[in-house]
Amino acid sequence: MKEKTLLLEDSIHKLVEAKKYASLRDLLMTLNPADIADAFAGLSDQTLPLVFRLLPKAQAAETFVEMDPEQQATLIRGFSDSELKAVVDELYVDDAVDLVEEMPANVVSRILTQADPQTRKMINEILQYPEDSAGSVMTTEFVELRGSMTAAQAIAHIRAVGLDKETINTCYITDPGHHLQGVVSIRSLILANETQTCESIMNPHVVSVNTQEDQETVAQMFSKYNFYALPVVDGDGRMVGIVTVDDAMDILEAETTEDMEKMAAISPSDRPYLSTSPITIWRHRSPWLLLLMVSATFTGLVITKFEDALATCTVLMAYIPMLMDTGGNAGSQSSVTVIRGLSLGEIQFRDAFRVMGKELIVSLLCGLTLAVCNLAKLMLFDRVSFPVAMVVCLTLLCTVIASKLVGSALPMLAKKVGFDPTVMASPLITTVVDVLSLLIYFQTASVILGL
Amino acid sequence: MKEKTLLLEDSIHKLVEAKKYASLRDLLMTLNPADIADAFAGLSDQTLPLVFRLLPKAQAAETFVEMDPEQQATLIRGFSDSELKAVVDELYVDDAVDLVEEMPANVVSRILTQADPQTRKMINEILQYPEDSAGSVMTTEFVELRGSMTAAQAIAHIRAVGLDKETINTCYITDPGHHLQGVVSIRSLILANETQTCESIMNPHVVSVNTQEDQETVAQMFSKYNFYALPVVDGDGRMVGIVTVDDAMDILEAETTEDMEKMAAISPSDRPYLSTSPITIWRHRSPWLLLLMVSATFTGLVITKFEDALATCTVLMAYIPMLMDTGGNAGSQSSVTVIRGLSLGEIQFRDAFRVMGKELIVSLLCGLTLAVCNLAKLMLFDRVSFPVAMVVCLTLLCTVIASKLVGSALPMLAKKVGFDPTVMASPLITTVVDVLSLLIYFQTASVILGL
Repeated sequence: MKEKTLLLEDSIHKLVEAKKYASLRDLLMTLNPADIADAFAGLSDQTLPLVFRLLPKAQAAETFVEMDPEQQATLIRGFSDSELKAVVDELYVDDAVDLVEEMPANVVSRILTQADPQTRKMINEILQYPEDSAGSVMTTEFVELRGSMTAAQAIAHIRAVGLDKETINTCYITDPGHHLQGVVSIRSLILANETQTCESIMNPHVVSVNTQEDQETVAQMFSKYNFYALPVVDGDGRMVGIVTVDDAMDILEAETTEDMEKMAAISPSDRPYLSTSPITIWRHRSPWLLLLMVSATFTGLVITKFEDALATCTVLMAYIPMLMDTGGNAGSQSSVTVIRGLSLGEIQFRDAFRVMGKELIVSLLCGLTLAVCNLAKLMLFDRVSFPVAMVVCLTLLCTVIASKLVGSALPMLAKKVGFDPTVMASPLITTVVDVLSLLIYFQTASVILGL
Repeated sequence: MKEKTLLLEDSIHKLVEAKKYASLRDLLMTLNPADIADAFAGLSDQTLPLVFRLLPKAQAAETFVEMDPEQQATLIRGFSDSELKAVVDELYVDDAVDLVEEMPANVVSRILTQADPQTRKMINEILQYPEDSAGSVMTTEFVELRGSMTAAQAIAHIRAVGLDKETINTCYITDPGHHLQGVVSIRSLILANETQTCESIMNPHVVSVNTQEDQETVAQMFSKYNFYALPVVDGDGRMVGIVTVDDAMDILEAETTEDMEKMAAISPSDRPYLSTSPITIWRHRSPWLLLLMVSATFTGLVITKFEDALATCTVLMAYIPMLMDTGGNAGSQSSVTVIRGLSLGEIQFRDAFRVMGKELIVSLLCGLTLAVCNLAKLMLFDRVSFPVAMVVCLTLLCTVIASKLVGSALPMLAKKVGFDPTVMASPLITTVVDVLSLLIYFQTASVILGL
């Protein structure tokens, strides 16, 4: 897929250089807007407006939506007022809202001036909802039907209004006060007898979300219920918009990235890496590194406390990194498994005992496997004394058990007390487990070796 | 959402106990199949078949699809042949295939015997495609139209065949040899003039995938192009099926879980955690722990080599865990960022120099921040000598820089040579970075402290 884009970009550049605009236009007409936007990503600020003007109106708007904010800003700066109006008029309201949120203030006021009054009103309404709420990601362009309409009347109505709606695949039955009463798919309208009323075809048990609902919950409802669209209602049950499945996919992707970032001790950012400045990246990373560095101080304290023992038996030092790393790895295996299970809803807090029980068995199995292999290695290759080998292997077993229990318990506890479980991933677990593994190590050593 | 399911489960249990089956049936009728399946998850093997039989035919099949394999097997074992036939007839072919893949062999032969010959043929065809290919996740039930049909004829055709198709929202124009010629949405058919031909309405530039294409690529095309369905063609360009957006969402979710598991050094599993046996979990986790344990041996070798130096200057020992952990954290921040960027397509191999340049600047900023804070802590709280503080802080700076460069370079290199970049995440990076940070530490110490 990537090679295709590179080839395409190349062809476009060559056609631009040769000023073969008619052929370029013919080529662009065969492409999907997302592919055109990809190919445009490599164009200079001078070439971009030139090439963009070759696109027919509808395709131009769809391509515009797929481009990155920098290129959108470049284009808008070059647009005449009437060109800007043409693009804004073709946008769906939710895309127009995204644009307004991304652009600098002076560009925004130009966009709002060019939008027609109806669109401007809708944009301003959506902008009032809190960030990342269902209201902020919905579109207000949906098909509303009355229960008394027949299937034929409903289809006639859709033919009259459908052109401006984001989707006609799912339509909503409301009363005159816009209260949501049912949902009907275009499929059931078409397959129904023409004289059946919408009321008799519709599903009255509609799953809907409130405007204030978190967007992540909304997106997860799509993957649970296999919806194409989900109605959004206000506090009084009045329908105000819909979220469509393509937006839900984008939200899921963004939330997954955010989860992965948090699990790697990075404050989440909503911009692509390549267009984020080093200063911003630094601000998202260094506080976590600092915090974890300070907490690693405790590990240092443990070592300092047993400094004399270590100096007497220096061979023990060589195994500290292996024990710390294995503990960290074993713990992060458990924490990542539990965090993902929690976020997919496969694991609930009430499963805590089952999870801990399972982790105990798994950690015993893993710990024994590692301890036995390590014992063989210590005796055959490292040729350490048997007591030292026992200290290392016993510590290994205990560390794996402790790490896996801590790694699975912390995310569930975090969830229970209302914290974000993702923060309990590898880096924090590692720090906790380091202290644990060293304490176990020195305790075992002092008992077995009498240090 | 979770609380609602618990409440519901409770109500269902109470109605079952009180044998109020009529009320229970009325309650179930108001629910979405996914919610019914959730509520059924807590029912015993005795109660489940009883309650399941209360559902009307279509809802029964949809609920069945949403249940987990153990409960599906319980139900099938209790079904009479005619009950099994009723459920199998209502399933879409792709769901029937999933079922056949999950069930034990004796159940499978019962399912295939009860399916009608046409369905059995389709199931067997899909089963022949390689695992995780587009062919294996597609459904063969789609609407095929001819270019010469008018919009009115097309809609009449859809009314005649639509009931058995997974979606009618997107229809495909093919020639008599089933070669894909164009795509037309139900929306454009309804909004078009009744006498327009499909050929004149359709989009002839169809994005399609080959049956052999990897399912992850297919799913990513949905999030890129905002499709509702994607046609699947064989080597000769003949259309054989479609993948729908709800399946794409499920694939993306499964692939994300797989990526997270690999990043935490776990071999991916496609079963939910709670229904996986401890032995299976052990088999997925212990090989990685073993591998990483063996590679940590190198870290031990470095320490052994500098054992004498450490024994002379024992204060250096206390900072080893902090340096190792910080290196690991800094490296995993970079590797996770690059891995996610690669998998979303935001970063390509050709961006390697830009990425490394950016990481160099970020690592300088992060390293300096940490070094300065640590210097203050070492001098004011730990009260170590200035040369020792310098050794620790210089090492910290160099470690952060080295870790971030290694952390960002390894995933890109892996991608370039065709390995899976996710394997280059935290655990492996940590091991590499441990060795690096210790080498830097002892080098700096020997230069500054003259050990």
